[in-house]
Amino acid sequence: MKIGIDAMGGDNAPEEVVKGAVEAIKDFKAELVLIGNREKILHCLTSKSLPRQISIVHTDQYVEMYENPTTALRKKKQASILVAAELLKRNEIQALISAGNTGALMEAALITVGRISGIRIKRPALSVLMPTYQTHCIFLDVGANADCKPEFILQFARMGNIYARVMMKRESPRVGLLNIGSEQTKGNAITLAAYELLSRSRLNFVGNIEPRDLLGGAVDVAVTDGFVGNMVLKTAEGTAELFIKLLKDYIKRNSLSKLAAILLRPVFNQLKKKLDHTEYGGALLFGVNGICIKSHGRADARTIYNAVKLAERLAQEDIIRRFTEDLKEEISDEQEPERQQSSDPDCVKT
Amino acid sequence: MKIGIDAMGGDNAPEEVVKGAVEAIKDFKAELVLIGNREKILHCLTSKSLPRQISIVHTDQYVEMYENPTTALRKKKQASILVAAELLKRNEIQALISAGNTGALMEAALITVGRISGIRIKRPALSVLMPTYQTHCIFLDVGANADCKPEFILQFARMGNIYARVMMKRESPRVGLLNIGSEQTKGNAITLAAYELLSRSRLNFVGNIEPRDLLGGAVDVAVTDGFVGNMVLKTAEGTAELFIKLLKDYIKRNSLSKLAAILLRPVFNQLKKKLDHTEYGGALLFGVNGICIKSHGRADARTIYNAVKLAERLAQEDIIRRFTEDLKEEISDEQEPERQQSSDPDCVKT
Repeated sequence: MKIGIDAMGGDNAPEEVVKGAVEAIKDFKAELVLIGNREKILHCLTSKSLPRQISIVHTDQYVEMYENPTTALRKKKQASILVAAELLKRNEIQALISAGNTGALMEAALITVGRISGIRIKRPALSVLMPTYQTHCIFLDVGANADCKPEFILQFARMGNIYARVMMKRESPRVGLLNIGSEQTKGNAITLAAYELLSRSRLNFVGNIEPRDLLGGAVDVAVTDGFVGNMVLKTAEGTAELFIKLLKDYIKRNSLSKLAAILLRPVFNQLKKKLDHTEYGGALLFGVNGICIKSHGRADARTIYNAVKLAERLAQEDIIRRFTEDLKEEISDEQEPERQQSSDPDCVKT
Repeated sequence: MKIGIDAMGGDNAPEEVVKGAVEAIKDFKAELVLIGNREKILHCLTSKSLPRQISIVHTDQYVEMYENPTTALRKKKQASILVAAELLKRNEIQALISAGNTGALMEAALITVGRISGIRIKRPALSVLMPTYQTHCIFLDVGANADCKPEFILQFARMGNIYARVMMKRESPRVGLLNIGSEQTKGNAITLAAYELLSRSRLNFVGNIEPRDLLGGAVDVAVTDGFVGNMVLKTAEGTAELFIKLLKDYIKRNSLSKLAAILLRPVFNQLKKKLDHTEYGGALLFGVNGICIKSHGRADARTIYNAVKLAERLAQEDIIRRFTEDLKEEISDEQEPERQQSSDPDCVKT
């Protein structure tokens, strides 16, 4: 199995990406293909030669984090993310990891491998494994679609449901709709309509959930539109960061608490590990016809290591085939929502 | 000065509300009027007679947390929140505090005192003082309007701007639009349009901000629609709770960390105080023609105490007059956005 990594993507690329790849080959069987500037990649290696399990596909171009994805990909035909996605399309790699520009990853994937075939994928979605009190849940869309239609959210739920069964081994995943209140009557126009669609589906839909329920572990799959999902994810991250920053500041104020903090270091490390995005490697891009993992823009070597771990498992579980087959099955089981979908002009949009 | 408190509102009413009122009169000059069931209120008192600074306006009815506000207020003409709002209208109280059903507070306020006069308030908004790294910022709308138009968000920003000047003593408040990215091109349809309006206004608009910037203290006023605001607020609360819960669990696992935790107790208390909603008392309902403070549904005595403190200051600062005068002035200064507003059919809606 070969896994491609966009070596030029992310705030800490290529240094941390290369470092993560080198760490990963110690523990995982997959061969890694680093896509990017050969010289810069080699420069990041501590060893003199390239490890046997790692190869490089050279390209000089890459998309910067701040660039507009569409414009950038139109201009840079040899951008590392595009080259990587083409390798995925030709099955020269079986999964692709990028910590770079999210929009560029999505666009590159859509241009090359396209959407899962056989069913009408309305919009790809970005997912994340959200840490919850006792375990974690799959949460989407966390940023692929700033404006969503209720039908998109139903499809996110269906894909999340399959992911939770296959990857998280949950038998009948509980699906929740993120909302401002638990009552059916709560929400904005989109959530009200999405609630309706979800309750008519065959999913194990448990209703509206608030952020507290999400974090408390009330569901296995949480769905929302990409704007709200992104906000919730970033607020959770931001709050955890603020918490740690304040904790450090307050501890520093006297020597007794400094001492106590040293004793508590293992506890803080455990907490950090639980809440740290690097531990999760990255988020699968749902709905495209190939395994594409988006790692955090601030990914470090540990993130990349974990992304390789995730990619390997996704490939082993043959997740794309599962999506394709199970989605078809689920939809054919549900007559009503399907009819509604087929008449929706969004099905054919890119 | 008299401050009315809905004694029946909130998860811990009337016990904690009465307790908070009794605490508050020790430190604040305002007379408190408790609106609710006389017998139940008296039952919560530890003293035999009612303290001189507290009076009761009796009513048997109240709106439950789960009730639909419109239906409830139509049926219960003597609901405590409605009786309280009528006292506010007749100026028998100068401010109103409720930890009860948010929608009922809003509706009751709109029915009685109505909107700030002289300018066309499109929608009232719920605000909150959001703790940030070094201080706090005023953040709205956090739940009054699940669906917002861009014009509402501009008005939220204007009201927030006045609040920050008057209550937080910030000279030229930095106003930020909560968004999924800092670039002007980022966002959903609403934020893109709101960005446009905000940048044409005379506000000190600093552009899009992400949750991290909000929590880091990058702005004095943060605006968003009521759905996203509510989600962000609840996610921040939920994450802080999860953090504390995990910390406690991990600490319990061995005796050394238990000991260290005891030493760190002052630090944890400081952190709790910083992030705890009870410390902020409640959130002003922006846009209605009277001081209405919404305290957290889980308000305890400390919350009510702090809400009284806030109410007293808002009344002293004559915040409603400031809103009325300054909003008129701001809008007359800005020709373009104003013209656009007048042609908006939403202006006259309730």
